[in-house]
Amino acid sequence: MHYVVRNVPRPDPGVVQGLREAGVATVHEAAGRTGLIDPAVCARQDGAVIAGSAVTVSSHPGDNLMIHAAVEMCEEGDVLVVTTTSPSTDGMFGELLATSLMARGVAGLVIDAGVRDIAELRAMGFPVWSRAVSAQGTVKASPGSVNVPVVCGGQVVRPGDVVVADDDGVVCVPRGTAPRVLDRARARIAAEEDKREALRSGELGVDMYGLRELLSRLGVRYVDDLPEEVQE
Amino acid sequence: MHYVVRNVPRPDPGVVQGLREAGVATVHEAAGRTGLIDPAVCARQDGAVIAGSAVTVSSHPGDNLMIHAAVEMCEEGDVLVVTTTSPSTDGMFGELLATSLMARGVAGLVIDAGVRDIAELRAMGFPVWSRAVSAQGTVKASPGSVNVPVVCGGQVVRPGDVVVADDDGVVCVPRGTAPRVLDRARARIAAEEDKREALRSGELGVDMYGLRELLSRLGVRYVDDLPEEVQE
Amino acid sequence: MHYVVRNVPRPDPGVVQGLREAGVATVHEAAGRTGLIDPAVCARQDGAVIAGSAVTVSSHPGDNLMIHAAVEMCEEGDVLVVTTTSPSTDGMFGELLATSLMARGVAGLVIDAGVRDIAELRAMGFPVWSRAVSAQGTVKASPGSVNVPVVCGGQVVRPGDVVVADDDGVVCVPRGTAPRVLDRARARIAAEEDKREALRSGELGVDMYGLRELLSRLGVRYVDDLPEEVQE
Amino acid sequence: MHYVVRNVPRPDPGVVQGLREAGVATVHEAAGRTGLIDPAVCARQDGAVIAGSAVTVSSHPGDNLMIHAAVEMCEEGDVLVVTTTSPSTDGMFGELLATSLMARGVAGLVIDAGVRDIAELRAMGFPVWSRAVSAQGTVKASPGSVNVPVVCGGQVVRPGDVVVADDDGVVCVPRGTAPRVLDRARARIAAEEDKREALRSGELGVDMYGLRELLSRLGVRYVDDLPEEVQE
Amino acid sequence: MHYVVRNVPRPDPGVVQGLREAGVATVHEAAGRTGLIDPAVCARQDGAVIAGSAVTVSSHPGDNLMIHAAVEMCEEGDVLVVTTTSPSTDGMFGELLATSLMARGVAGLVIDAGVRDIAELRAMGFPVWSRAVSAQGTVKASPGSVNVPVVCGGQVVRPGDVVVADDDGVVCVPRGTAPRVLDRARARIAAEEDKREALRSGELGVDMYGLRELLSRLGVRYVDDLPEEVQE
Amino acid sequence: MHYVVRNVPRPDPGVVQGLREAGVATVHEAAGRTGLIDPAVCARQDGAVIAGSAVTVSSHPGDNLMIHAAVEMCEEGDVLVVTTTSPSTDGMFGELLATSLMARGVAGLVIDAGVRDIAELRAMGFPVWSRAVSAQGTVKASPGSVNVPVVCGGQVVRPGDVVVADDDGVVCVPRGTAPRVLDRARARIAAEEDKREALRSGELGVDMYGLRELLSRLGVRYVDDLPEEVQE
Repeated sequence: MHYVVRNVPRPDPGVVQGLREAGVATVHEAAGRTGLIDPAVCARQDGAVIAGSAVTVSSHPGDNLMIHAAVEMCEEGDVLVVTTTSPSTDGMFGELLATSLMARGVAGLVIDAGVRDIAELRAMGFPVWSRAVSAQGTVKASPGSVNVPVVCGGQVVRPGDVVVADDDGVVCVPRGTAPRVLDRARARIAAEEDKREALRSGELGVDMYGLRELLSRLGVRYVDDLPEEVQE
Repeated sequence: MHYVVRNVPRPDPGVVQGLREAGVATVHEAAGRTGLIDPAVCARQDGAVIAGSAVTVSSHPGDNLMIHAAVEMCEEGDVLVVTTTSPSTDGMFGELLATSLMARGVAGLVIDAGVRDIAELRAMGFPVWSRAVSAQGTVKASPGSVNVPVVCGGQVVRPGDVVVADDDGVVCVPRGTAPRVLDRARARIAAEEDKREALRSGELGVDMYGLRELLSRLGVRYVDDLPEEVQE
Repeated sequence: MHYVVRNVPRPDPGVVQGLREAGVATVHEAAGRTGLIDPAVCARQDGAVIAGSAVTVSSHPGDNLMIHAAVEMCEEGDVLVVTTTSPSTDGMFGELLATSLMARGVAGLVIDAGVRDIAELRAMGFPVWSRAVSAQGTVKASPGSVNVPVVCGGQVVRPGDVVVADDDGVVCVPRGTAPRVLDRARARIAAEEDKREALRSGELGVDMYGLRELLSRLGVRYVDDLPEEVQE
Repeated sequence: MHYVVRNVPRPDPGVVQGLREAGVATVHEAAGRTGLIDPAVCARQDGAVIAGSAVTVSSHPGDNLMIHAAVEMCEEGDVLVVTTTSPSTDGMFGELLATSLMARGVAGLVIDAGVRDIAELRAMGFPVWSRAVSAQGTVKASPGSVNVPVVCGGQVVRPGDVVVADDDGVVCVPRGTAPRVLDRARARIAAEEDKREALRSGELGVDMYGLRELLSRLGVRYVDDLPEEVQE
Repeated sequence: MHYVVRNVPRPDPGVVQGLREAGVATVHEAAGRTGLIDPAVCARQDGAVIAGSAVTVSSHPGDNLMIHAAVEMCEEGDVLVVTTTSPSTDGMFGELLATSLMARGVAGLVIDAGVRDIAELRAMGFPVWSRAVSAQGTVKASPGSVNVPVVCGGQVVRPGDVVVADDDGVVCVPRGTAPRVLDRARARIAAEEDKREALRSGELGVDMYGLRELLSRLGVRYVDDLPEEVQE
Repeated sequence: MHYVVRNVPRPDPGVVQGLREAGVATVHEAAGRTGLIDPAVCARQDGAVIAGSAVTVSSHPGDNLMIHAAVEMCEEGDVLVVTTTSPSTDGMFGELLATSLMARGVAGLVIDAGVRDIAELRAMGFPVWSRAVSAQGTVKASPGSVNVPVVCGGQVVRPGDVVVADDDGVVCVPRGTAPRVLDRARARIAAEEDKREALRSGELGVDMYGLRELLSRLGVRYVDDLPEEVQE
């Protein structure tokens, strides 16, 4: 029942780089508002932005054996994605594992559990998104799997999916739809630049998006003062 | 049932500025320990301090239509205060809305929900206090109200109330009592400077505040060693 | 039932300093994975590392009277450890108390409750680990104890125990076992340096720790592709 | 700053009784989906349904002095509504206070904190909605207020408002709007009976509410099988 | 992007019935400890046990439009499984929808959000597992999907999967593996009856499972009294 | 580092029985408001009341090996108290272990983790207080200890301490102080009977406890109507 899978079809590097430049919020919108990992899995440093091909790990709680097994499966530019089979905040990952991953060119870690050595990880420049920071040590005793589909922070992540992470959180894009999502993300970025200019010069969103009619249709009334009977 | 109210009686700018200088903890004390918004609505940047007149928004969860409607009601120095009618962590606010608010001179945002584009907001210098950071996108489909009394983080906020926010959190002071609160805050600050000096030179709080008698009256006993029978 | 205990047997300063240099994660491992305080009691600044002899406080919730009583019991290099008799997030501690503690050379604060004046505390360089940041003010009305055994963040802390705190959290080491824990921590650090070098040069943890046999014994199978019947 | 207010304008008993019969979910809808207290304040028994005029209490956390002061202000059919000035789960209320309230004909308790003696309260038939069950004892040491506007579970409750509570939670209706809300609740109940009959006989909500066109307009497509390209 | 899928391959009724009789804990074990939905999605009545073929719904938070659309897709013995695209506790489901589902023979509801009319649902005998109970009303305004794969309580649920729910929670078994899981569940039940008898007559688990050697190998020492040096 | 301790000094059975009759809330008060276990560890059945001598277990999270080892150490009337070394909600305990404990006359289980087979446990009449209900299975792989001091729900529990549990929660009384606590509990019960009678006949707590003077001294003012200037 437990597998370490060697072959992972990886996404196009240009697509990965494009999604990284778009950032999490834009990619999430371009993907039809899908794929966002639970925001409780959050950045443990400021300003880092990564994207890469997912190497997935399913671990027993309080046990980091399978993370060690996963290192060997990682290639340049991958993102390691770790989940546990039941909730845990234990610090399953620290600077030694990060050293090992950096030696292989891994872009960063997304983990639905805890990490430790957080000061060292920041100093090393190895970016991490985690549910918790905890020094709680773990054992190496129970089996699990590497490169199987997992649910991380409420989202399905498959090996080879594109994972994008920045200060806003983490989004996962299936490898097959990534090119289309990138196209839409780029269109969105282009459109936003115009909007940003207009808003900066004082134009209102209610006009730009044509929301006045919608507000009226929904029964929102503009008044100088709140009617007395609703003030209570 | 849904209103956008145009007229908001705004507080005296000098009072607002004075409360900003006093900071959240001091204002909260000067207001008789009232008005503190749930600390889960917290600063998303370090070191920002703002105060301003509240423009309030009541939104449907997962829907930022009414934030767009509120922008038009904002003036120089206002603080936008957003709540949802049921709990939500969705990212209702990002850098485009911030661009629009900055164009109008708004001081910052307090939101009992989520924000996104957090790196951009920090780079722009637009300060935000929120319950969550989440890239989760929202729709523009359901009605709500602007400039009606709301409950934000467990506190009533009325349009025109003074909202003060810093690294300690957010406090709301009713417009009518703001001048008196400022007086008390200033008296407190003056008194604290003396206390700070005394404490720095080694005087003890138990002496300064005359607590030794209270401790004795409450039955607190000073002993060299813990009595054996209570060590268990 | 309420005591302020004057005599606290303090740990050896060299041991304290050694544990500080080892850091929380290493000390926790060297102590047999014991003593870790609930990670929800977390650092309120980046990069601070402290260790010291515990002065303990048991307070009524929403009341900081006993913190004032505890200041007098603090000596150079102590760490103040504060708990409440029922859960509270109120801001029991701020910059005036910090001023007083700094005047006595206290290394920092660990509190299973809230703190305020967080910007001032950072500016002063007084490090704090707390469950919450909250401006909520407290009273001085109810009795408690100083320098009695307490449970802080799920761990027993006795006066004179060594408390170590950094970005990874807080760990408590009983005074009696602290020298042995330090020995083990140093051995661990020495061993880790070799491992770090090996990992940096590309050696794998599965080889270094001899995990391949364990994985095999646990039934973990290496496969090129996931068998079809488990793909569902 | 602390008051016990004697005069409370109470709502019409017929309106209170009507809202009790309508129940929380219907009243909440009839009130335009407003007034619902945080569902974390939940029923501590099965099947109880109450409605009454609110007597409000604002207490210091961990202190039940003001509940004792409030008893005297309670009349037949009132509902006691208790909040604390900062979050607390302490058991502020037990069977002795319930005995006192039952002697005055109070309908029940809504408390944004903890209760204890829960088995005795059930045996006595005194219904309670609370945030927590906790045996943690409290003191009688700090001032507060009775019959002032409070925020309980995120909703403003004013003395004399109608509070309705059942297994679904607690809703508060301002005294002034209660008659109109009752009218709308009754209309809703009448309409629902017809709907219930239709649904029972197999009619579909999508037809009854005319939702098919809306679904089509929103771009929801009915298909026999999920298109292959979105199966990933 | 939004679909209502009509064709769902349903599992064998005998398998469904067998898994229902085995119960959640046994099925979860028989499935290799996989498929358990987050225990926060819990039973809202005592003693109900259901199993059925999943009809899945992906809804916008605070919006129950797609539940109405899903009713039509339900058949005798199905279990409705509802998720939202971002976290919500709103009461999306009540007795009218339950009336409609009961008319179609649906076995029960599993919802990663809130329900209301909880007393009526219990009286009707319609069992529900939900993340929350809340009277908070919802709208019918935003699109979603029916009978697409969803993540509910951290587990992938596909239309046609077998969902089993009882007082212990909810487990999902993929349709393809359900027969094998049933075989293992039945073997487990048979084995447990013998164990139960032995344990009842006083045999110890450490002997029955042969754990004494494991305990010894792991370094667990049996002692008459705790060694003095570890008592601290 | 891991021990199973055979000898446990057990408390006087008469004292245990007396504390059981007093109940958790009264015992907690009689113990000076100490010893209350985190209310999140709560009753999983209605109306059960137990007291007994603690047999303690410290387990690795997600692993119930040490519970099996503990069974052998249990005697008639004991209460099993289980903690994990880091937070876990896994269902470590079910009806087979309960069968084993009932065969030895154990009164019940207190566990700072999860249980499963909850319907069976209720049917068997084996009472449980737990942090969670979860079907999540566990392994038997990691060492721990039996009958060493543990922290359970934030309270120190030593083997041989008296543990009392009912619908209000769980309290732990050190064996040495249990007789004194029982004396105080009985005095409290006697005094409460008089108070209950007085309250039932309409006497007010503010008079019975002499609180009117305290309220006055604390500055609480009785007024007919709320002063206008504070109504805002």
